[in-house]
Amino acid sequence: MTQDRPRDHPLRRSCARRPLLCLLGVLALLAAGDLRASAQSADLKALIDDLVAANRILYRQGVVDGFGHVSARHPTQADRFLMAAAKAPGRVTAEDIMEFDLDAKPIDRRDRPIYSERFIHSEVYKARGDVAAVIHSHSPTVIPFSVTQVPLRAVHNTASFLAAGVPVFEMRRVAGMSNNLVTDAMRGRALAETLGDRPVALLRGHGNVVVGPDLRRTVARAIYTEVNARMLLQAVMLGGPITFIDPEENKLIEAGRGAQITGHSVDRVWQMWLEEALPGASEPAR
Amino acid sequence: MTQDRPRDHPLRRSCARRPLLCLLGVLALLAAGDLRASAQSADLKALIDDLVAANRILYRQGVVDGFGHVSARHPTQADRFLMAAAKAPGRVTAEDIMEFDLDAKPIDRRDRPIYSERFIHSEVYKARGDVAAVIHSHSPTVIPFSVTQVPLRAVHNTASFLAAGVPVFEMRRVAGMSNNLVTDAMRGRALAETLGDRPVALLRGHGNVVVGPDLRRTVARAIYTEVNARMLLQAVMLGGPITFIDPEENKLIEAGRGAQITGHSVDRVWQMWLEEALPGASEPAR
Amino acid sequence: MTQDRPRDHPLRRSCARRPLLCLLGVLALLAAGDLRASAQSADLKALIDDLVAANRILYRQGVVDGFGHVSARHPTQADRFLMAAAKAPGRVTAEDIMEFDLDAKPIDRRDRPIYSERFIHSEVYKARGDVAAVIHSHSPTVIPFSVTQVPLRAVHNTASFLAAGVPVFEMRRVAGMSNNLVTDAMRGRALAETLGDRPVALLRGHGNVVVGPDLRRTVARAIYTEVNARMLLQAVMLGGPITFIDPEENKLIEAGRGAQITGHSVDRVWQMWLEEALPGASEPAR
Amino acid sequence: MTQDRPRDHPLRRSCARRPLLCLLGVLALLAAGDLRASAQSADLKALIDDLVAANRILYRQGVVDGFGHVSARHPTQADRFLMAAAKAPGRVTAEDIMEFDLDAKPIDRRDRPIYSERFIHSEVYKARGDVAAVIHSHSPTVIPFSVTQVPLRAVHNTASFLAAGVPVFEMRRVAGMSNNLVTDAMRGRALAETLGDRPVALLRGHGNVVVGPDLRRTVARAIYTEVNARMLLQAVMLGGPITFIDPEENKLIEAGRGAQITGHSVDRVWQMWLEEALPGASEPAR
Repeated sequence: MTQDRPRDHPLRRSCARRPLLCLLGVLALLAAGDLRASAQSADLKALIDDLVAANRILYRQGVVDGFGHVSARHPTQADRFLMAAAKAPGRVTAEDIMEFDLDAKPIDRRDRPIYSERFIHSEVYKARGDVAAVIHSHSPTVIPFSVTQVPLRAVHNTASFLAAGVPVFEMRRVAGMSNNLVTDAMRGRALAETLGDRPVALLRGHGNVVVGPDLRRTVARAIYTEVNARMLLQAVMLGGPITFIDPEENKLIEAGRGAQITGHSVDRVWQMWLEEALPGASEPAR
Repeated sequence: MTQDRPRDHPLRRSCARRPLLCLLGVLALLAAGDLRASAQSADLKALIDDLVAANRILYRQGVVDGFGHVSARHPTQADRFLMAAAKAPGRVTAEDIMEFDLDAKPIDRRDRPIYSERFIHSEVYKARGDVAAVIHSHSPTVIPFSVTQVPLRAVHNTASFLAAGVPVFEMRRVAGMSNNLVTDAMRGRALAETLGDRPVALLRGHGNVVVGPDLRRTVARAIYTEVNARMLLQAVMLGGPITFIDPEENKLIEAGRGAQITGHSVDRVWQMWLEEALPGASEPAR
Repeated sequence: MTQDRPRDHPLRRSCARRPLLCLLGVLALLAAGDLRASAQSADLKALIDDLVAANRILYRQGVVDGFGHVSARHPTQADRFLMAAAKAPGRVTAEDIMEFDLDAKPIDRRDRPIYSERFIHSEVYKARGDVAAVIHSHSPTVIPFSVTQVPLRAVHNTASFLAAGVPVFEMRRVAGMSNNLVTDAMRGRALAETLGDRPVALLRGHGNVVVGPDLRRTVARAIYTEVNARMLLQAVMLGGPITFIDPEENKLIEAGRGAQITGHSVDRVWQMWLEEALPGASEPAR
Repeated sequence: MTQDRPRDHPLRRSCARRPLLCLLGVLALLAAGDLRASAQSADLKALIDDLVAANRILYRQGVVDGFGHVSARHPTQADRFLMAAAKAPGRVTAEDIMEFDLDAKPIDRRDRPIYSERFIHSEVYKARGDVAAVIHSHSPTVIPFSVTQVPLRAVHNTASFLAAGVPVFEMRRVAGMSNNLVTDAMRGRALAETLGDRPVALLRGHGNVVVGPDLRRTVARAIYTEVNARMLLQAVMLGGPITFIDPEENKLIEAGRGAQITGHSVDRVWQMWLEEALPGASEPAR
């Protein structure tokens, strides 16, 4: 094997001249590599824990039922994402989390069943470099907006991100009469195009897709999209003109959600959702 | 007793000639019979377990309350079906499961109370050879559709089977002013006629009947019929034209539900419903 | 004390003549009295248990919240009724049950607080000899019907008794501007008049009163009145003509509820409600 | 230090003349001070317990979710109020309760996060000497009334206090396009002005503020404001003219809520809410 190494490698030349310094350098490099690897592995472990929590939280908050899935982009490999094997989100554990590439192929499938609509995730990650998490759900009060002409718009601060507009994806335009499921890359790509640069799109007669810059914030978006849909439905029932959150207001509201500060915004609700969905798993009170 | 046996029975003649071979043959026949009987009894035991689970699941999911009942056709005797004694579905145990013939007569009643509307089940099994399970419920959001002119139609993928149309059974047409209950074979037959070859029919001011090709899938149908009714009600409240699931879409969606694959479709939700309705009874994670 | 006994009492004369027979007679009379008293006391004990269960059930089923009350006529003294001390129904225990006369005066108050609207109960018992139980609640979906012109009518079999019509009591007609509470006999009497011979009346902006021929059936009536109100509200939202349960149908439905048969009608749901509201208190499975 | 004492202090002169009497007097003064301090500290402790309970109750009753906050004026220092550190109300414990002055500055912050909208509380306490408790929530059914033209009005006795009128605060009028949050004193003051002398105001697209003369009664007001919003929404859906609680009726109803009597009004529901929100923390049954 050694004959493959280029004879003029600078490290080799240094080591030949200053063996002790060389040894120290090599040790330092190894240690740094170890630290990096171990930091990476801690990041991955933390993300997997959050992904399991996200599954359980979305179920407990009524956003997903037995169906629906949530994924997160890999913390160090941007062309991979993490998602559970095909299982009801409310039952997912760390052992179920698998890695997929951006063609939605599992890296290490073994014999586990996988979600047939994983192309929703792979195609959104391909199209949207800014997206670190994707949720697909049958969020119940969102669906009536997908089969009528009433646009889902923001009426509440906590869902102000809907002020960017919520497009509706119509599978018939893309695939004609079909099973209305995003079961291949073409359909996933078409959905990603409908989504554009927005945080939420609806799938007609099916559900929605919610994306965001990090997993916890995306979970909050999915939950408050449902909450806002209930409020908007009731406002429509009351009748008359409705005052929506203005896109300008949304910009200023979202600015305050950028950083995750202990006790504020997403962190405050995440700690509560976590405690309820996975009792005992919550982080120590801060 | 032996004189009743025909003298020329071939087995008897063989045995007379080759006693050892005969003995082996008899033993083999007995063993095969035992195996068959034991396989049948394992099938029956599994179906009874599923039927108890179905009762509990339908209650926990809000499809039945204290009233309503669910039955399954006998796994080996097509002219019999299994159903609980008269009891709130949420309290049913394996000991409550009884066998009925297609005249709705209990095979071994002992002194147990029986559902007065068991004719819903017997008459549907008679009329529909393709049906292996029948559910009658007061599914709450379904009932408003039974007393108005708004047809219950499919707006969501998971209830696409409603695209076949949902007829409403009006007891007054059949029995005039009555107690509005399906308490005899004539009424059951009329209801089965209204149902036709569809999966769901409503009973005006009373509830619905849901049928299917196997028990688990029928339970899923009953649950998603209620879910779809809630979504449709909200769509009607939003106003304007509604995009329904197309019968063509339904055909393609239903095709994917035919086989029960671990982790997919009905299996995925059944495992979750089971775990919640009967904690500890769920099958090992797969 | 003995000098107060009339000298010519027939028992006394007999006993003087036939002392042994007399002794046996006296013993028999005492035994019969004991039995009767003990049967009466068992009846009372059973009714108190049911009344505690009724309080808990009505809370768990969402008919009463912290307010509302339920009473039962005394099993042997028709001019008395049993009701809890002033306490949230969901917290009532056997120790809280008190006796009241038909002027709503507590028999043995000690220092317990009592419901200020107990006149609802006393005046209904006075006016309606056929009534053995009275429930007053803020049944949530019933109240919108009390402040609009839409009559609460029966759309579901289980609430067919509403086909008799549901009048609305307007306190302003009786007491002008008031605290809108039935805090004296005059107001109670006016409410009883509005109720007439029906099972349910609404109190405008306040709640309802539900009565019945026995406690368990009255509890079922209160629960299904709320269930029916939800269904009717949804039917109104769907729009168009509504098919109500016909008074003739109600007569035939109610006929089947007269007797309490194990496993049927009220008994079936009561056993379930009881098990949920007071785990461990349910009667052995039958 | 003693040289700072004025030489002609009357106590000093008395003590010089009558040392024994002086000693007794001093001891008495100290004892009285101790008693007063200890009574004050018991009051404070009881209020903190109630404030923790209020947080938990408002969460369990669905008035606050992860957001929202509740405060109480300090029992002895009218220019201070008590409120939790920035945390989901459903997770608040006694250790989280902090003291704030009327500029919304924490007295002893240490490194705890604080609610950014604490100015709602400080400015209302400044403007309203009669107010002893303030609740800000995203009470879900109240919000549709904040984005439509339908005023939130009283339809039910338990929320009769809404008969005083419920104004809607529009942040755009005060701060133009903003993050729609009450994050400074100017905005808080404007909100307090909109509130005026009423018990409840809505914040457009955001939530409400509820105030009252004591903490428990304010909690009941927040809960019944949500309950009443649900009832009014349903009444609007039923259509036609609605009979509201008359301001005159409200005056008479509120009169009966002034005193907190064991087993009546607010005390009755508080004991129930407490038992459910903090099992084991309820006061002994009375």
